[in-house]
Amino acid sequence: MAEKKQMHLTAFMRPVSLHTGAWRYPGSYADANFNFAHLTSFIQKLEQAKFDAFFMADHLAVLNMPVEALKRSQTVTSFEPFTLLSALSVVTERIGLAATASTTYDEAYHIARRFASLDHLSNGRAGWNIVTTGNPESAKNFNLDEHVEHSERYKRAREFYDVVTGLWDSFADDAFIRDQESGIFMDPDKMHVLNHRGNELKVRGPLNVARPVQGWPVIVQAGQSEPGRQLAAETAEAVFCSPKNIQGAKELYEDIKSRATAAGRNRDHLKILPAAMIIVGDSVEDAQQKRLKLDSLVHYDSAIASLSIALGTDASGFDPDGPLPTELLETNASKTARESVLKLAAEEKLTVRQLAQRYGGYAGLAFVGTPESIADEMETWLKEGACDGYTCVFPYLPQGLNDVADRLVPELQRRGLFRKDYTGTTLREHLGLPRPENRFFPSKQTNGGAA
Amino acid sequence: MAEKKQMHLTAFMRPVSLHTGAWRYPGSYADANFNFAHLTSFIQKLEQAKFDAFFMADHLAVLNMPVEALKRSQTVTSFEPFTLLSALSVVTERIGLAATASTTYDEAYHIARRFASLDHLSNGRAGWNIVTTGNPESAKNFNLDEHVEHSERYKRAREFYDVVTGLWDSFADDAFIRDQESGIFMDPDKMHVLNHRGNELKVRGPLNVARPVQGWPVIVQAGQSEPGRQLAAETAEAVFCSPKNIQGAKELYEDIKSRATAAGRNRDHLKILPAAMIIVGDSVEDAQQKRLKLDSLVHYDSAIASLSIALGTDASGFDPDGPLPTELLETNASKTARESVLKLAAEEKLTVRQLAQRYGGYAGLAFVGTPESIADEMETWLKEGACDGYTCVFPYLPQGLNDVADRLVPELQRRGLFRKDYTGTTLREHLGLPRPENRFFPSKQTNGGAA
Ligand SMILES: Cc1cc2nc3c(=O)[nH]c(=O)nc-3n(C[C@H](O)[C@H](O)[C@H](O)COP(=O)(O)O)c2cc1C
Ligand SMILES: Cc1cc2nc3c(=O)[nH]c(=O)nc-3n(C[C@H](O)[C@H](O)[C@H](O)COP(=O)(O)O)c2cc1C
Repeated sequence: MAEKKQMHLTAFMRPVSLHTGAWRYPGSYADANFNFAHLTSFIQKLEQAKFDAFFMADHLAVLNMPVEALKRSQTVTSFEPFTLLSALSVVTERIGLAATASTTYDEAYHIARRFASLDHLSNGRAGWNIVTTGNPESAKNFNLDEHVEHSERYKRAREFYDVVTGLWDSFADDAFIRDQESGIFMDPDKMHVLNHRGNELKVRGPLNVARPVQGWPVIVQAGQSEPGRQLAAETAEAVFCSPKNIQGAKELYEDIKSRATAAGRNRDHLKILPAAMIIVGDSVEDAQQKRLKLDSLVHYDSAIASLSIALGTDASGFDPDGPLPTELLETNASKTARESVLKLAAEEKLTVRQLAQRYGGYAGLAFVGTPESIADEMETWLKEGACDGYTCVFPYLPQGLNDVADRLVPELQRRGLFRKDYTGTTLREHLGLPRPENRFFPSKQTNGGAA
Repeated sequence: MAEKKQMHLTAFMRPVSLHTGAWRYPGSYADANFNFAHLTSFIQKLEQAKFDAFFMADHLAVLNMPVEALKRSQTVTSFEPFTLLSALSVVTERIGLAATASTTYDEAYHIARRFASLDHLSNGRAGWNIVTTGNPESAKNFNLDEHVEHSERYKRAREFYDVVTGLWDSFADDAFIRDQESGIFMDPDKMHVLNHRGNELKVRGPLNVARPVQGWPVIVQAGQSEPGRQLAAETAEAVFCSPKNIQGAKELYEDIKSRATAAGRNRDHLKILPAAMIIVGDSVEDAQQKRLKLDSLVHYDSAIASLSIALGTDASGFDPDGPLPTELLETNASKTARESVLKLAAEEKLTVRQLAQRYGGYAGLAFVGTPESIADEMETWLKEGACDGYTCVFPYLPQGLNDVADRLVPELQRRGLFRKDYTGTTLREHLGLPRPENRFFPSKQTNGGAA
């Protein structure tokens, strides 16, 4: 019997919930983003549930939002990814540790070095989410007045990737001899000086860290634009994306996998992991009530601003407790965006307030139901070629995370869709990815598994 | 009875030994710089001995040395400081964690953020050794062909310090309310936007991390030049230095303390901690034998190059096993440097080989003797105003470190010169330094303890 296609699960953990009302949900830790003891308990729980990885998003500025929203946001303060993940590497043994790092506002030598160091500290569990940095405010913290332009950001990102992976290959895996008798510590013939001189970067090398345990930390990418998808296809081994529904997910899946094939890569060496918020209840209605309760914790002022953006119309004059006044919606704004709001309003019979709070809370893909109904949906997506697994977003913590670990994961395991135990020790092994060859020191035999 | 002046002890741990032969010493861990289990055992031992801090030097390139020396160097590969110290914060509770970070080849926002994050992770144990980066090869890893010029590096360092400390002050200590009931997470009146626009840096802020536990991580500095000393006097709370003898140490001590006073600071809020290698033996002769043994592990080819530099004469033609041929030394090179070699050769009756191996191993200040004789020297320096404590350099590990922790520290404690237990929890408290006021949110009462 052919084994069922296996699902990969990573946890989106910075912020610990993307839902802006999460920190206020009854029983939540209000300081979860910034409390090491809580983060330790979360990651240990995720490791018990055999998750592939713990994932830290990252932003290089306090997020730009109106002060009324900012003062209610749990994201104002959190740990920096490398320092946090390094600390978490000590309290875990198997789960992967993926950090976001910017190619626009950092240096290739620093990035290569920190990921190599994290990979050694964690015995091969590091992953790098390559971003070009979405928040334009970041520029102002790095000596610029304006955000670097989009295509320029992606040009630099592509070259940055070449440099970072080239630096990781600075030493052959067996370069370090450390022979106390002869006094030879390192074989200089197994050290490579990169001497990169490109359009964007000049980096000599070699790196002052031995080759990472995984050869290279796992490359993750989350860009959605045309150049973002192309970068993913050429470089990524895991893709975080945020499709709205299964149809969109399938299109994205095929698009990125075909681009990977066109770029000469094995399409199985690139895992597509859409972000999905998961709310588990005793019944579907119970889960939906939890979601409404969670949404209701979003302050109306910031919520209505989000709805106005989604509608392309100022919605602040609408009756909060009435239905959406559809007759007022003829505007110039994007028709598809408006239609998806209208569809949601009709399907779930939401008032203006509830709609606003949905958009101001978390409007991305969500699986809301019982362990069985959610497992059904997740299985369908997996089978129908919409994904290779999920980037799980928790609605509130610890309870929403515990519900996934204690109730959903066992159901997925029962169905044979998710591992019952780790079979490997590295993040690469969890994700079923080959260890990259060192481009400067290829092994004698071809291993047939190049990325 | 007035309490005796207390000594501070920090451990120089990157590389774990500055002696180039250390990794070959019988019983040494050859991979100590790059083995987390060993580093954990070292820091835990230092914490049991109540050390103030564990200190990581840092270099942004593989050190530039001839290939014959490079292949014998234990420094080629080691962990990156932030990742390592964050991991070590989890396996310790009290000892300070000081990382070196460059103001020349990094960004103020990144540096401010990582130290703030490390300070929170460690509950107030972070320290920042500000360096302008000594190794000119570093430039080539950061898009430049030439090292940034010395005075320009120090100009940028001074402004960089203002920006980093300004970013640490982005939030009042009580800015985060996290009131689940009202939904107010942060008080925006307690957030400050730095808006720095200087000659070297443009950084808007605010930082996306809450104010550090210590207010600011402890500022450490190790520059020796005129602008280096001035930067220390204006900003540093601890100074690592490398005087050759007690006379030089006293001059440096007075110079930096007077500059601090002239800059309007309290001279007690700046601790001077010369680096000293410590070799403990059963007798003075035993310790000296250990040193000779250690020196003998330095390869002659690299050793003779170091001696030639110290003498200002090519020494490679001298008879390795004869005395230094003083008649051949009339050169144009620095007279003081040559005289100190001659003095050493005469005092310890060293052959050319032994001399070379001393210079190629570790030629800095060393205390070599019994626990009592070393404690005598350390006490004299402390009493005579040559230092406020020491940056301990270990000759080989684990034994050299264990000798200090198990044999020397108890002797210092017996004499009432060093703490028997920690009295505070933060690095600032260990060093007797005040917590800095937030410049944007001063406390109502003046605390009288501003730095
Ligand atoms: C699941 C997910 C996580 C992301 N995490 C980050 C992040 O941590 N930091 C960031 O700057 N952007 C992040 N992004 C944004 C992407 O990097 C990218 O900027 C965005 O998808 C827009 O695509 P484009 O840059 O290709 O136009 C994330 C996107 C997704 C879907
Ligand atoms: C104990 C000690 C530790 C040092 N650690 C570093 C270091 O980690 N990285 C670095 O680039 N320089 C380091 N230095 C060098 C100083 O930062 C400085 O460059 C050197 O003392 C020369 O001084 P100057 O730069 O003021 O001319 C250290 C110096 C001393 C004495």
